[in-house]
Amino acid sequence: MSDSIKYVLDESRLPRFWYNICADLPQALPPVLHPGTHKPVGPDDLAPLFPMALIAQEVSAEREIEIPGPVRDVYRQWRPTPLYRARRLEAALQTPARIYYKYEGVSPAGSHKPNTAVAQAFYNKEAGVKKLVTETGAGQWGSSLAFAGALFGIEVQVFMVRVSYDQKPYRRALMETYGARCIASPSTETRSGRAILERNPKHTGSLGIAISEAVEVAAQRDDTKYALGSVLNHVLLHQTVIGQEAIAQLEMAGDFPDVIVGCTGGGSNFAGIVLPFLGAQLRGGRKMRIVAVEPAACPSLTRGRYAYDFGDTAHLTPLTKMHTLGSTFTPPGFHAGGLRYHGMAPLVSHLKTLGLIEAVAYPQVAVFDAGVQFARAEGIVPAPEANHAVKGAIDEAIRCREDGVARTILFNLCGHGHFDMQAYIDYFAGRLTDHSYSEEELAMALAGLPAVAEPA
Amino acid sequence: MSDSIKYVLDESRLPRFWYNICADLPQALPPVLHPGTHKPVGPDDLAPLFPMALIAQEVSAEREIEIPGPVRDVYRQWRPTPLYRARRLEAALQTPARIYYKYEGVSPAGSHKPNTAVAQAFYNKEAGVKKLVTETGAGQWGSSLAFAGALFGIEVQVFMVRVSYDQKPYRRALMETYGARCIASPSTETRSGRAILERNPKHTGSLGIAISEAVEVAAQRDDTKYALGSVLNHVLLHQTVIGQEAIAQLEMAGDFPDVIVGCTGGGSNFAGIVLPFLGAQLRGGRKMRIVAVEPAACPSLTRGRYAYDFGDTAHLTPLTKMHTLGSTFTPPGFHAGGLRYHGMAPLVSHLKTLGLIEAVAYPQVAVFDAGVQFARAEGIVPAPEANHAVKGAIDEAIRCREDGVARTILFNLCGHGHFDMQAYIDYFAGRLTDHSYSEEELAMALAGLPAVAEPA
Repeated sequence: MSDSIKYVLDESRLPRFWYNICADLPQALPPVLHPGTHKPVGPDDLAPLFPMALIAQEVSAEREIEIPGPVRDVYRQWRPTPLYRARRLEAALQTPARIYYKYEGVSPAGSHKPNTAVAQAFYNKEAGVKKLVTETGAGQWGSSLAFAGALFGIEVQVFMVRVSYDQKPYRRALMETYGARCIASPSTETRSGRAILERNPKHTGSLGIAISEAVEVAAQRDDTKYALGSVLNHVLLHQTVIGQEAIAQLEMAGDFPDVIVGCTGGGSNFAGIVLPFLGAQLRGGRKMRIVAVEPAACPSLTRGRYAYDFGDTAHLTPLTKMHTLGSTFTPPGFHAGGLRYHGMAPLVSHLKTLGLIEAVAYPQVAVFDAGVQFARAEGIVPAPEANHAVKGAIDEAIRCREDGVARTILFNLCGHGHFDMQAYIDYFAGRLTDHSYSEEELAMALAGLPAVAEPA
Repeated sequence: MSDSIKYVLDESRLPRFWYNICADLPQALPPVLHPGTHKPVGPDDLAPLFPMALIAQEVSAEREIEIPGPVRDVYRQWRPTPLYRARRLEAALQTPARIYYKYEGVSPAGSHKPNTAVAQAFYNKEAGVKKLVTETGAGQWGSSLAFAGALFGIEVQVFMVRVSYDQKPYRRALMETYGARCIASPSTETRSGRAILERNPKHTGSLGIAISEAVEVAAQRDDTKYALGSVLNHVLLHQTVIGQEAIAQLEMAGDFPDVIVGCTGGGSNFAGIVLPFLGAQLRGGRKMRIVAVEPAACPSLTRGRYAYDFGDTAHLTPLTKMHTLGSTFTPPGFHAGGLRYHGMAPLVSHLKTLGLIEAVAYPQVAVFDAGVQFARAEGIVPAPEANHAVKGAIDEAIRCREDGVARTILFNLCGHGHFDMQAYIDYFAGRLTDHSYSEEELAMALAGLPAVAEPA
């Protein structure tokens, strides 16, 4: 095994394909249903929102989908991203574990999100689209789409969840620096936004509401489309460059993960690192444990129901089968804004149901304890979302110490926290609180799930 | 010439030595003088503030000084840093110029400052020092020393210029995340701070005042030393890894700079990229133009006097010959806090006097115009300080377009602006103002220069 701390792939090893796990799944994904008819949707149903190239990727069964040259040219600016061995953290934890982390914070927008933002901007540009509308939670996704829009000359409009809009003015400033327009959601610019504000003028927003607003604006014009930063198959697909690189980098290190850890909100960074490893396992390769870490204040995978539900609050989106807390569920304003989504990617939900991955939920304060410990050892300050993965990896490493076993732990450090320092300010000031739910509270939002006769 | 956009050196090409230009200068630097006797200082005079290893580097005439293994081990986390070809910016400017930038923002603290912070923390740790005290302007330096202190187990205390302390709460939070203590300067914790506050309780501070406070605290205890983030020879020395790497990377690109641009506050990032190129020129190599860019609101190189002056406001430091605006000069609270220093590195001042470098000063708003144009083309949002270098490079590129000449421009993008987004918020809101001085205003602070009979 090597004694390096950093594993860098040559530019020539930038992946040429996105990996589509649908080709290797033991059981196909349940179909996506039309919100009105409850029948499986066809490509034409999605055409008002997405260009055909992305719709084709959404339903593709091909194992490898070629990454277009212009997308690779942009990726090249920061990819392949480094894989680090966290030697100083290992020493601080006095663990025999070998901890590796893939660091996606080196992208211009500071997270894994540009991997799909650049691809989506490219395909929309090819299709003649002039404007992209989207939602954002913490702002990682909105700023990534703003970045990609600037490169490809597409106008970008972002509905940002109100609580994050107020908490994270720097993230908003980043979007504006890239030339995007950023609006607090719920807003008065859409029917769905106005409906929410009429009931509660001080509504702090949710990803589900912001999605409704973005979808509503996008559906109004032919030259305007919608872009989603997680959840959908094609988004998860674009993130698989992460895991493909990590496989090659761990080979350089002469190592292989016993356990892979990622944080999950919509599921895209988790899928990005996990799917290429899991695909190899499904094709007969070595087995590993895979752990999804989510916030206890938004526990879709650990406490949600696996059922058909809407992706948004106003019920404008198709129905997908996923782990959900109910589309009207509004999580409290905790700092990991990117993990405040009521549902989970259908693909990640499916893997959970097939028993291929585990899930665990952590409260906020313990997650920041872990993030600060990581920052002091490794120098990188993680995003609040990424702190969930850090906490998961540290807990695995502590278990190794207790068991006296030197397992290999890999986690995805999906972004830095430079635009989220208010969260750290609140943490040090003792202003962060933990939030949990009784069974009754969770049951309330689930009672609103649509009645769907599942296809055979 | 290659058509890449990114030039990455293998870890094996991380520099093994810092380059000391004093070995190649046509004329030696004027000596440093004792603040009381006005006689040249000896190593013992500096011993209360710095460990002997750093004092030896401060006065060394050796061309190459070996980088200790533990320092290189830390550098390895983010070095060699990438060199980028700014192809999208070139296209936006419609210039025949080839623009390259060395990107130091990939370090954990987000700037070039860890190059010397890590070295200084290492030598202090070796000397048994328990605590380091320093000043910081924008916070790039304070957060870098906080990072280095966390790695080597040294306590860090930072006096942060009041205006930046208030403008940049995220930078302060970063220092605290690394475990450092951050105090607004002028403070009530020192004699020099209290003296300033008595005269003006609302004083917004200056680097000169913060240095006085840090030096005062450091001189009180044997196990506590002072650390400076720029200006001194040993600090500039540590930054020469930047230029050494850039030389190798431009060789990979099959190119050589006709002009090198850097921003100057104390002078360390500028020296870091410039000195290795300039040393090669002095040893008979190819000539190039070298341009230092400073803010018009703090124009030490373009409008200051080349004279002996104190490094701080309370006159606790030795006297060095440098371009200075006078140690009582307090620049307005503009956003490039790292460039708000009344003096300039003696070494950079010396190069200017020898006619080896040029200098230009830009007003703040034009500098942010350039930074936003750069961000929209290249995706990276520069620090306000770095925007000065961006503006300098863009102006050179526009001149190439006007002259119809394809010159090669290299600039140092010394840090990202993630913690400085308030500056961009103010820029977009039209709240940034330009500040300039009449000759009379500048003469006032210069009238207080110490009367020094210069050594022959």
